[in-house]
This record gives sequence, C-alpha cells and structure tokens, in this order.
Amino acid sequence: MEYLIFSEETLRNFTESVFKKMGCSNEHVQLAANVLIKADLRGIDSHGVARLTGYVRLWEKKRINATPNIRIVYETATTATIDGDAGLGLVVAPFAMKVAIEKAEKYGSGWVAVKNSNHFGIAGYHALMAVEKDMIGYALTNASPLVAPTFSSERMLGTNPICYAFPAGKHAPVVVDMATSTAANGKLEIAQRQGKNVPEGWIQDKDGNAALHPADLKNGGSLLPLGSDREHGSHKGFGLSATVDILSAVLSGASYGPWAPPFVAFMDPLPNQPGEGLGHFLGAMRVDGFRPIEDFKANMDNWIERFKNAKPINENQKVIIPGEPELIAEKERKISGIPLIDAVVKDLNEVAEKLGLNKLG
Amino acid sequence: MEYLIFSEETLRNFTESVFKKMGCSNEHVQLAANVLIKADLRGIDSHGVARLTGYVRLWEKKRINATPNIRIVYETATTATIDGDAGLGLVVAPFAMKVAIEKAEKYGSGWVAVKNSNHFGIAGYHALMAVEKDMIGYALTNASPLVAPTFSSERMLGTNPICYAFPAGKHAPVVVDMATSTAANGKLEIAQRQGKNVPEGWIQDKDGNAALHPADLKNGGSLLPLGSDREHGSHKGFGLSATVDILSAVLSGASYGPWAPPFVAFMDPLPNQPGEGLGHFLGAMRVDGFRPIEDFKANMDNWIERFKNAKPINENQKVIIPGEPELIAEKERKISGIPLIDAVVKDLNEVAEKLGLNKLG
Repeated sequence: MEYLIFSEETLRNFTESVFKKMGCSNEHVQLAANVLIKADLRGIDSHGVARLTGYVRLWEKKRINATPNIRIVYETATTATIDGDAGLGLVVAPFAMKVAIEKAEKYGSGWVAVKNSNHFGIAGYHALMAVEKDMIGYALTNASPLVAPTFSSERMLGTNPICYAFPAGKHAPVVVDMATSTAANGKLEIAQRQGKNVPEGWIQDKDGNAALHPADLKNGGSLLPLGSDREHGSHKGFGLSATVDILSAVLSGASYGPWAPPFVAFMDPLPNQPGEGLGHFLGAMRVDGFRPIEDFKANMDNWIERFKNAKPINENQKVIIPGEPELIAEKERKISGIPLIDAVVKDLNEVAEKLGLNKLG
Repeated sequence: MEYLIFSEETLRNFTESVFKKMGCSNEHVQLAANVLIKADLRGIDSHGVARLTGYVRLWEKKRINATPNIRIVYETATTATIDGDAGLGLVVAPFAMKVAIEKAEKYGSGWVAVKNSNHFGIAGYHALMAVEKDMIGYALTNASPLVAPTFSSERMLGTNPICYAFPAGKHAPVVVDMATSTAANGKLEIAQRQGKNVPEGWIQDKDGNAALHPADLKNGGSLLPLGSDREHGSHKGFGLSATVDILSAVLSGASYGPWAPPFVAFMDPLPNQPGEGLGHFLGAMRVDGFRPIEDFKANMDNWIERFKNAKPINENQKVIIPGEPELIAEKERKISGIPLIDAVVKDLNEVAEKLGLNKLG
C-alpha cells in the first residue's frame, strides 16, 4: 500500500468543503469535520476522513439529513431521549453529550439516549467532551450488523463500541475506547487490502466455521464477539455488545440488533424496522459528585504511574495505559501530518470531482 | 468430586446462624444470607455459601466489621459516596443500591460509589434490585488482585465484574453479569480440585509465559484479561477491568489496583494503602426517564425473541440470552435443592463447630 501524507489543515479544509456542499450549517460543518479529523489525528484511521465518502453516499440516498432538527423528545432532570432527525451522528452525538453535561452540572449526572441518528465517528471524541468539564464521560453506539452472538452464524450486532473517559491530573485522561468484537472491522479491511489472512478467532464463515480469510467475512460470514469462542468468554463479548445495543437503541427507540441500518449505502435497511435509525447513549458524571476533584486526580495519577510500572513480561514493552497510543499518535500527527492510503485518497477525490470541489491533491 | 444436596431453607438457616453468631443485626443477617443463597440458587456456586467461611475468617481478623455504621459521606442530587465502615459487602452494596434507586425515583438516575467495603457477592443481586423498580441496574466491584494487564506478569487487578440488568415484559430480565477476565477464578478452583489443565489463554505463569496448569496460578502466575492475548483483544479486557477499578475504587476512595485487599484472610493487605477497603459502584436509571416503560418492555421482548431465534450454528444449541442460564438454575434448584461439593461442606462444618453452631448435616 502507498501512503500520502496530508496536514491536518488540508484534510480539515477538504472535509469542511464536503459537508458545506451537502448543505450543513456552518456550525455543523465545523463540528462534523472536527470529529472526523480527531479520529485521524488519534490514529483511528478507519473512523476518520476515510469514512467521509460513506456519509456522502448516505446523504445522496436521503438516509442522512444535512439540516436536521435535533431535539429532546423525552426528559427527566437527569435523563433524556433525543431524536437526531436522521442527521449526521457526528453532530447529533455532541448535541446529546452537551445535554448530558448540562444535566450533570445541575444534578451530578446526565444520561442521554439517541434515536434516528447515523454513524457518530469515534466514541472517544464524545466522551472526552465530559472530561474537559472534570466529568467522567461515557459513549456507546450501535452499528451495522457484522457480529454473530455466541452459538450463532447470523450477523446480529455491530462492533458496538464502549467508551469511558476519566480525567487525570498531570497525566493525560484515561480513555477506554473499544469495539466489543475481538477485532474492529477496520483491521479486517486492512487485511483484505493486503490480501493477508487474519488470526484465528477474529471471524467465522457463513456457516459458523472458524475462518482466516477476510473474504469469508464478505461472503456472509461474521465477526466474533470479544473472547472469540465460548471457552475464552465470547459470551461476555456478546453480553457487552448486547448491553450497548439495548442502551443505545432499545432504550432510545432506534433500530436494534439485525435491524440496525447498514453504513454502506448500497445496502438498504431491513424491512419492518422496530425503531428509527441508529442509536447512541451518552453520559456524564461530575467527579466532584463523589469526592473532591483534586483527590480524584491525584489518585488517578497514582493509578496511572503504578500501572505504567507494573512488572513487564519483556523489559522493552511496558503496560499501555488506555488512551496512551491515541495520545502519542495525536502528538506525532499534529506535527508530521496524517497518512492516508492511496485507495482512500482516490475515493475522496472522486467524490470531490462529483461534487465540483477541489481535490485533495 | 462428591456432591451433597441441600434445600434452600437448610442452607439459609445455616448461613443465618453464622452471620448471627458474628453479631450482625437481624436485618443484616437476613440480607447477607439472601445475597449468598441467591448466588447458589442461580448456579454461581463460587459466590454462594462456599464463600461463607471466608467472611468468617476476615471477621476473625477484624477486617470485617459485623456492626458497621454505613453512611453517605459525599452527595449531590444524583450521586453519592458511601463509607461501608468495613462491613460485609453483602449488606453495604444493597444499602448503596437503595440510595441509587431513591435518587433515580426523584431525578431519573442515581449513582453511588462505595469505599471501605468487602466482597459483595454476585453483582447480579444488586443490579436486579433496580429491575424490580422498572429501572436499569448497574453494579461493579473491584476485587483481590489476580489479573495481569496486557504485557505484564504482575497481578494488578481483580476479576472485576461488570453487571447490567434490564427489565423485560413477558420475558425474564436480561442480566449481563461477567468477570472481565477470560475465566472467572471459580473455574480455576474447579480445575484445580479435579487436577485438570485449563485451556490456553486463561492463565500465565509468574514470568508471563502461557500456562495450562492451575498450580501455575497459585505459584505467582495470573489470570488473563478477557481476550487472553493482545492479538485477541486482551487490551480490551484490561480496559474494562481498569474501568471497574477506577469507578469502584479511585472514584470512591477505596484501595485500587494491586492494593485492593485480598479476600483470603491469610494474606494481609499491602502496606501504604491508597484508600480504604474494597470499592463498588452501583447505579440505577428509570426506564421511563427515556421512553414509556411499556414501549421499552415490548421492544425488549422483541429483542429477546429475535436473538433467541438467531440462526444457530448447530440446531441443538440456540443463542443463550444473558441471564438465561442463571434463571434456569434458579427454577431447578428451588425445587431440587442446591448441590455443594464435599470440600465446601467440610469447610462449613468446621466453622460451625468452631462457632458452636449446628452442623449442616
């Protein structure tokens, strides 16, 4: 694979031009671009501008509404359900997290379920909004069905990520941001492009047999829940993914399980949808609702340092604190730029041409 | 192994007699026995009366206070921190969940961190208290260090369970109740008693090498986080376990990471404790804070039925809904009794003799 390197600014300008062309408001243009660029900066390439053409195609099919009326449809002091009006998840989720944070400021915590939304980018972006306010952030979303429950060969769940973000003191926030499948779909896409096999335990074929080649996934196979098989706890991965699906979609009134609308525009959502669009679940808790923030931060720093210095198996590989690799990527890429593979650049430039925009170069 | 079968009533009476002898109040005697017996009924044998002698030994060492003054030490409208006063987690956690439920009744949600507590039994007991009120229940606890982070050979975390419980309509609640390690410690204990090897990916030896024999765990080895190795997502299991540790202990002011006090009385807690005792985190959210309860329950029933009928790999093994095995066990054991292995019965009877109580028989 060939890589081309772009500055953050170049990619941001390009991304903004696309969202602007779709008819998004200036505020939404900036916000949506910000969420995508943040993914690229943090090294989560599968959720950055590589996704941009996917959003455009869903918009062309009128499955994404560029000018949504995002609104609260149900509410208590600390809970709410939001209708995303088929908007970009990239702008619906930050709206929802703002509501959660406002409730947490008043009452200690805030919890917002979202229906009728679309792919929301990296969960970490939304959870980190809470950390900026010295709160603990929580972000979940359901997603296109790709994962089979333990004992099944049917795609019933998305890679349904869970994200918790915790503020620290002198150290960076701890950010746990993880798909509940053994491997994220992005890793499969990379293996497919490279024509390589994947490790046993990542996927199964359409009949539920162990499989190694990414093509088996495309041909009706499925990703496996975290744990890979029953003996290694795949029922736990399934349980976590089910939890994400229920909180994001059953609780909000979005479509759940196999009905979750596919991200790819060439596949239509299943008939007889039980809800509206994709669902998310966002939460914020004030740390000082539990103990003084300075005490918490001092203990988080101690926690981070103790775990960083846990006895390593190999001297040259210390324990990685959750969120650390993303932080390192962000520092590097702010300076040296963001690499995109040539297939992504080609795809982006085709869309630019179609929309009458300047190409990436 | 030999099993002896006891009725629920026999075990309950025996358990109550032990807690009474320890000096617990009548209310605490009943509650603590109820939490333990519930574990046995639900088939989670490692967390039932098999644990009883462990609590007695901690009480003898004055690490468990039989007459605690459990109290709220920090609070907002929807958050609180509780000091368990070194009481049995079996009574401290239900106290905390009651506070969470009361806050949820008023404000939509309630979240309670607990410090200075002890082992709280099965997480599912506490989360299900919320379900009885048509709320979503959430229960976490940190635990004795047995699990090594990815890349480390040091025991830094407990099997730190996560539990979410969701009410349904005509179907039983969905209860996700899982250790964040690949295998729960109870499964290792069973293998050890039977002199059997365990599957690769459950444990490593003291140097971090793959290991198969439970003795390697006893000899300074460690359990592996859900995912087993980095290639299969053990960093996700570590991230989940870290989340449980931070919410339960860093947020509450309990002892975290390798400092979490060991359950076994023959091991003293490490010096320089950064907090007090074990920590828990309990939460409750009103379903009708998000959508009408009847809508939610109807969709939960639909969710359960759709997943139950996902295409099976083998016709004779359908998908298992989280919480289903425990429910089946509970129905059976209510009628046919609770099996205890002879080693557990012997241990219980020795404690009975020492305390001057009637033996189990």
